Amino acid sequence: MKKNWLIILLAAALVTVSARLAYEHNSADAGDDSTEASASADALECIMTRYSLRSYSPQKVNDSITEKILRAGMAAPTAVNKQPWEMVVITDWALKDSLANLSRGTSMMKDAPLIISVCANTNRFLEGDTPQGGYWVQDCSAATENMLLAAHALGLGGVWCGVFPVQERVDRMRALLNLPDTLIPLNVIAFGYPAGPGSVKERWAPGRVHYNRFK
Amino acid sequence: MKKNWLIILLAAALVTVSARLAYEHNSADAGDDSTEASASADALECIMTRYSLRSYSPQKVNDSITEKILRAGMAAPTAVNKQPWEMVVITDWALKDSLANLSRGTSMMKDAPLIISVCANTNRFLEGDTPQGGYWVQDCSAATENMLLAAHALGLGGVWCGVFPVQERVDRMRALLNLPDTLIPLNVIAFGYPAGPGSVKERWAPGRVHYNRFK
Repeated sequence: MKKNWLIILLAAALVTVSARLAYEHNSADAGDDSTEASASADALECIMTRYSLRSYSPQKVNDSITEKILRAGMAAPTAVNKQPWEMVVITDWALKDSLANLSRGTSMMKDAPLIISVCANTNRFLEGDTPQGGYWVQDCSAATENMLLAAHALGLGGVWCGVFPVQERVDRMRALLNLPDTLIPLNVIAFGYPAGPGSVKERWAPGRVHYNRFK
Repeated sequence: MKKNWLIILLAAALVTVSARLAYEHNSADAGDDSTEASASADALECIMTRYSLRSYSPQKVNDSITEKILRAGMAAPTAVNKQPWEMVVITDWALKDSLANLSRGTSMMKDAPLIISVCANTNRFLEGDTPQGGYWVQDCSAATENMLLAAHALGLGGVWCGVFPVQERVDRMRALLNLPDTLIPLNVIAFGYPAGPGSVKERWAPGRVHYNRFK
């Protein structure tokens, strides 16, 4: 009789463990079916949790990370595929100190381990683009957003500081970076690793969604 | 003796199944350890594999997906947090046919299950912004790029068709969507599920990366 009980016990244990295994398999399969969904969740989460980071830890940004951010910028769509950008990477601390005085909102530049200025090259302008505006502003803005998202995805953060179209800032940037006349600095972006936890602004405003024709 | 064999058989089966279960658990743990790295890889991959999609399958875009795309748009950074956008969602097929004739590059509009036009609200302009340009162009462009990336992450694709600053297109859009004078249509974006495989443009141009001061 003891052996009968042992058989029953072992059989029960086998059924339990097998059932657990079957469950885990099914969960994994469900995971496989939704692989795209979970990849998308990560990309969406990156978009939804990005915030403007203004306080950086002293940790350096290495060349490989910098290149990933720049590649993300250049992956942005551009009108007629003109890719009108030139990226200026700023690592010189004296320059960073000067950039910190560019405007009221750029003081974080003096502490940012990595700074990138997205400039437009007038030699790559579309017909209709002028130094006063055009599709180059939109193209370079999309590249900037890609870089901010890439930085966030990589565990860094950044903040977009506007230069163009404020002429005084454009002139100051031109002088600081010794830019040729063919380059227009759109902005200057500070990047780095977070000094502490950040917070995401809630911006969803369904009242600003409209359908088809305005009444 | 038969029972002995049965016990041995059951015990062996239990060990095998348990070992398998332990293995699957360990694999899952390894996955957990690398969650952050793979999340960033997914977000970066989304940025690097986005392309302009111009051919759509007939599959509809449901309201939940549309809202995710709009939320991504409104998660973009804006100068002084002005969030100057108004989003016009276009689902009306007669309107889509009209949008297909907006310019040489908008013929796909007639087949796109979802169209969104990002407009700027002049009531939300910053000092210095004008209907001719300003930070609102940059803000609305960042929102547009977020929406294109969100669509790609969700298995859809899209294409950004410029409206502003081409006055003829701005006027045409105003008439079609019955926009008030306070709204400036920056663009019109077609979204949908891919009709077939797409291809990503290689845009990386290390020669357009510069360091600190130009010589």
